[in-house]
Amino acid sequence: MAVTGVLRPGFVQMRVMDLEAAIIHYRDRIGLEMSGEPVDGRAYLRGFDEFDRHSIVLREAKQPGLDMMAFKVRSDNDLDRFAGRLNGMGVKVETVPAGEQPGVGRRIRFVTPTKHTIDLYTEMALAKEGPMISNPDLWHKEPRGMRATRFDHCALSGIDIDGSAKIFTDALDFEISERAVDEPSNTRLAIFLTCSNKAHDVAFLGHGEDGKLHHASFLLESWHDVGHAADVIARYQISRDIGPTRHGITRGQTIYFFDPSGNRNETFAGGYQYYPDNPLREWSSDQAGKGIFYYEGRLNDTFLTALT
Amino acid sequence: MAVTGVLRPGFVQMRVMDLEAAIIHYRDRIGLEMSGEPVDGRAYLRGFDEFDRHSIVLREAKQPGLDMMAFKVRSDNDLDRFAGRLNGMGVKVETVPAGEQPGVGRRIRFVTPTKHTIDLYTEMALAKEGPMISNPDLWHKEPRGMRATRFDHCALSGIDIDGSAKIFTDALDFEISERAVDEPSNTRLAIFLTCSNKAHDVAFLGHGEDGKLHHASFLLESWHDVGHAADVIARYQISRDIGPTRHGITRGQTIYFFDPSGNRNETFAGGYQYYPDNPLREWSSDQAGKGIFYYEGRLNDTFLTALT
Amino acid sequence: MAVTGVLRPGFVQMRVMDLEAAIIHYRDRIGLEMSGEPVDGRAYLRGFDEFDRHSIVLREAKQPGLDMMAFKVRSDNDLDRFAGRLNGMGVKVETVPAGEQPGVGRRIRFVTPTKHTIDLYTEMALAKEGPMISNPDLWHKEPRGMRATRFDHCALSGIDIDGSAKIFTDALDFEISERAVDEPSNTRLAIFLTCSNKAHDVAFLGHGEDGKLHHASFLLESWHDVGHAADVIARYQISRDIGPTRHGITRGQTIYFFDPSGNRNETFAGGYQYYPDNPLREWSSDQAGKGIFYYEGRLNDTFLTALT
Amino acid sequence: MAVTGVLRPGFVQMRVMDLEAAIIHYRDRIGLEMSGEPVDGRAYLRGFDEFDRHSIVLREAKQPGLDMMAFKVRSDNDLDRFAGRLNGMGVKVETVPAGEQPGVGRRIRFVTPTKHTIDLYTEMALAKEGPMISNPDLWHKEPRGMRATRFDHCALSGIDIDGSAKIFTDALDFEISERAVDEPSNTRLAIFLTCSNKAHDVAFLGHGEDGKLHHASFLLESWHDVGHAADVIARYQISRDIGPTRHGITRGQTIYFFDPSGNRNETFAGGYQYYPDNPLREWSSDQAGKGIFYYEGRLNDTFLTALT
Repeated sequence: MAVTGVLRPGFVQMRVMDLEAAIIHYRDRIGLEMSGEPVDGRAYLRGFDEFDRHSIVLREAKQPGLDMMAFKVRSDNDLDRFAGRLNGMGVKVETVPAGEQPGVGRRIRFVTPTKHTIDLYTEMALAKEGPMISNPDLWHKEPRGMRATRFDHCALSGIDIDGSAKIFTDALDFEISERAVDEPSNTRLAIFLTCSNKAHDVAFLGHGEDGKLHHASFLLESWHDVGHAADVIARYQISRDIGPTRHGITRGQTIYFFDPSGNRNETFAGGYQYYPDNPLREWSSDQAGKGIFYYEGRLNDTFLTALT
Repeated sequence: MAVTGVLRPGFVQMRVMDLEAAIIHYRDRIGLEMSGEPVDGRAYLRGFDEFDRHSIVLREAKQPGLDMMAFKVRSDNDLDRFAGRLNGMGVKVETVPAGEQPGVGRRIRFVTPTKHTIDLYTEMALAKEGPMISNPDLWHKEPRGMRATRFDHCALSGIDIDGSAKIFTDALDFEISERAVDEPSNTRLAIFLTCSNKAHDVAFLGHGEDGKLHHASFLLESWHDVGHAADVIARYQISRDIGPTRHGITRGQTIYFFDPSGNRNETFAGGYQYYPDNPLREWSSDQAGKGIFYYEGRLNDTFLTALT
Repeated sequence: MAVTGVLRPGFVQMRVMDLEAAIIHYRDRIGLEMSGEPVDGRAYLRGFDEFDRHSIVLREAKQPGLDMMAFKVRSDNDLDRFAGRLNGMGVKVETVPAGEQPGVGRRIRFVTPTKHTIDLYTEMALAKEGPMISNPDLWHKEPRGMRATRFDHCALSGIDIDGSAKIFTDALDFEISERAVDEPSNTRLAIFLTCSNKAHDVAFLGHGEDGKLHHASFLLESWHDVGHAADVIARYQISRDIGPTRHGITRGQTIYFFDPSGNRNETFAGGYQYYPDNPLREWSSDQAGKGIFYYEGRLNDTFLTALT
Repeated sequence: MAVTGVLRPGFVQMRVMDLEAAIIHYRDRIGLEMSGEPVDGRAYLRGFDEFDRHSIVLREAKQPGLDMMAFKVRSDNDLDRFAGRLNGMGVKVETVPAGEQPGVGRRIRFVTPTKHTIDLYTEMALAKEGPMISNPDLWHKEPRGMRATRFDHCALSGIDIDGSAKIFTDALDFEISERAVDEPSNTRLAIFLTCSNKAHDVAFLGHGEDGKLHHASFLLESWHDVGHAADVIARYQISRDIGPTRHGITRGQTIYFFDPSGNRNETFAGGYQYYPDNPLREWSSDQAGKGIFYYEGRLNDTFLTALT
């Protein structure tokens, strides 16, 4: 396909209450690489299979949660084009100057109806020891911890998820791959959006409070590694939410857990290849539990309540 | 990303010498689904996880090999746009009328410098029992044989692979993800092209004779299933080429074997996620063996010679 | 080691309320092979990788539960030797004549303090299409359903599990591999016994009612197949108890579910190799939850209550 | 079963030409644990899942190869009993005094007709940081390198393998699980022997020269880890022999490679559970290639020639 516009979720900036504990969690347990030492109270990390210098930013703060989720777009022109479209939809667009994060160019920023801050950018410095490109080996050194290969997506919770999704589809050319609907009220319970061949790049989950982070998710190589992630979680007494299990929605094989500040993480593998000519997959409210957790067939309590 | 233009390899039509034997191979061993009974001397099959009615066409003929490889494009406008670009490059474009294959709309056709026939189309009927979309389960019935989920790509062999690749990049907006170069002569040995987040959607391999099919490839879920494919190959005495092994190029975990007519097949899993901002990965001629077979570090004899 | 005495759990006879439904469950879902048609209201099945003609006997009855668990011993002499030892311990021994089950020789029978009927036997006819032995392939036909390879063990629930375990260790030369103890009362909560290199061949679980079957367990090849078993369970709406997860005790990777009559089944993979010079592994009552379910760290409600 | 006599392959002492390079190979690549620093020119290692203090002994020498393979037996009485039986068969028995290796009690020693030195012992000190036994976790720290869990077996090459096997069956109560026979000459090509539920604990391979080590083998958890072992081998340019593949004999999923001194190693997973009532599995000479390498169906050249 002609690959234009939004390429992928580029990074997420999350608030953590103890930066040192967070680094141990994301670096040693999830297995991310540090991009240098923390600066300005923020630590920058990336999966070992990511070229760009960072995809996870941890900012020390008094409360956990999401600062912003940022998407990388293909060209500088795209930034202007998207800014124009957003303005056209009545969405206010701000600019974040280059260098606010190390190695990151100018960003345009908007806030969704669900009160999530979204950035778009086109320039990020490459990691010093990113994936090899000349007669490349698989990795520089063996993956450690949960062996996460890359930051994959976020799920964001709030009230008007239809409104937020509409910005992604109409202004940013995302597709809706799957959704769950409460038929009586015709309310969207969950909307999964993709700008790629992945089943989702961002999801919006209906919730009574805006601006919430449901989870930040990391890609694993296989179900075998999902099991290994569960071993790591148990061994180091990481707070586990649910899994290993499988999603009906996206079919991903998954485990959920919490970072030391209470932000939910997911490590997952699998899922189908998405193409924009795929029919929309829909879940009715009585089957939404199976959609979220295919094996359990129902949600666990914390899944809907433990948000940051 | 804005998903426009070529979506994916849509189908491949291959010649087989004994249609019945070929059906047993592709349906029962690789695990594809038949889309109805053969018509006009052609059998139509698809992976259980594909929505469109067919992705593999087997045509009974006196010699094995490739009739054509076809790519699905997003819109009818794209067909005209690509025809214009091809013409602009001096590539002759023909039209194949709708209905030449059951359920397939009009196609535009061109021949590459390596003498491979390539079709583009935008309409194909959905399979009768494709993936579920309403509260979907993983599958209708358990995958069988090698449990191939979908047709993935072809590798095509010929002389002027640079010329063929140029059409895909310049007219069809493909990217080159990896390539192997013979430095002394500056000849491309192999070029891997993608129109998606997959490491490759089509590959051209340098070879002294034009118009050759190197292999047609099917996607598996995991390395575990690559091992199971090897078990199936050994159990049913399918002619095996090489594997289970891993490619350095694309990192796919793979096994190669031959259909009863001698067409090479691959079943594979894994590989990295490709994005168009990825640096080009290059292999020098002395490391090309490792690039093709990462574990063996060298090519086997048949890999370069057994083509159809 | 000199392999004498009890070889392994040979078969279990369970009561089911609807024989036809049970056959669909054990044959098509778990993937066992029928050893001929049912006779005398009993169906006989085995894993595809078992030589003996049956390891699972399903008897139609008004209530689910365990008729008896039977262990195969190496020689006819062993039967007499064990009968003598049992008598010496004051355990009453009966004889079940050859032919009570098709293909099975004479059995000696005793009842444990937990009121479980245990049989020992030395002769069973070979399956008609058991594992190949002359230039053997892996299997005759591809494993189906959950791809269970063999019947592995049972867990039996009752009050005086110390007394039952003592018969297995003192009369039958089993070893205790692991146990969980309630320290305040010095009560055994669970005792895992082995007569082999497996982490357990039978387990006794403390429970307020005697004679109960906790579960009958089947061996899978890998964690990948545990995931596939979960897919099968969800796809066919089999009643699932818990899993995929891992046991702390034995380290097995596991999923629990119920047959249509309510008997609990387990399919599992992995676990350590046991040797009789291994130190005893002990679990304290406050960690018993982690011992049973290593990922969850606690028992689910049904695990202790849903017995047959 | 009554577990008496020989428990398992306890350790192997191999000669290596560069102790430091060997330690890097066995510790960092295969993933074994050092049992303290080298003493007397010998390094002592074990798999992370082994209780005893060592199972691999590397002795610096001018030539690679096998010093001795040692089996742990259950009791001191067994040592005397086996010594008596060996003497009765005309096999000369020597004694190696306690302490010749750190932590190891007295050994009895004999030499097989194939000129392999075999030791039997009953006492070895426990590792300082062996597997946990009180509310045990899976491991102390994450497995590294190939993630080998334990030393598993050796294959030994020589002329009169029937004679060597006879000592193991008649004096030491081993069983023959599988064998390959050259029918015209009625010569045994390969004999696989077990003292446990494993498909083999030692193998003898027919070869024109006596006293040769074919390979020392380490257990992995799964086929996934066999693939990871292949990744490690390629990444660190370890000399690879063959694999990932599967054995027809034992069904193990395997990869072969060489340590820096040329001793062949295997890391493998899977294989069936053996019981002494299993029928003997036999391979004819024309199918022996498939027996050794199930996928390839034939031996590679080095397999028969590269011995130490």
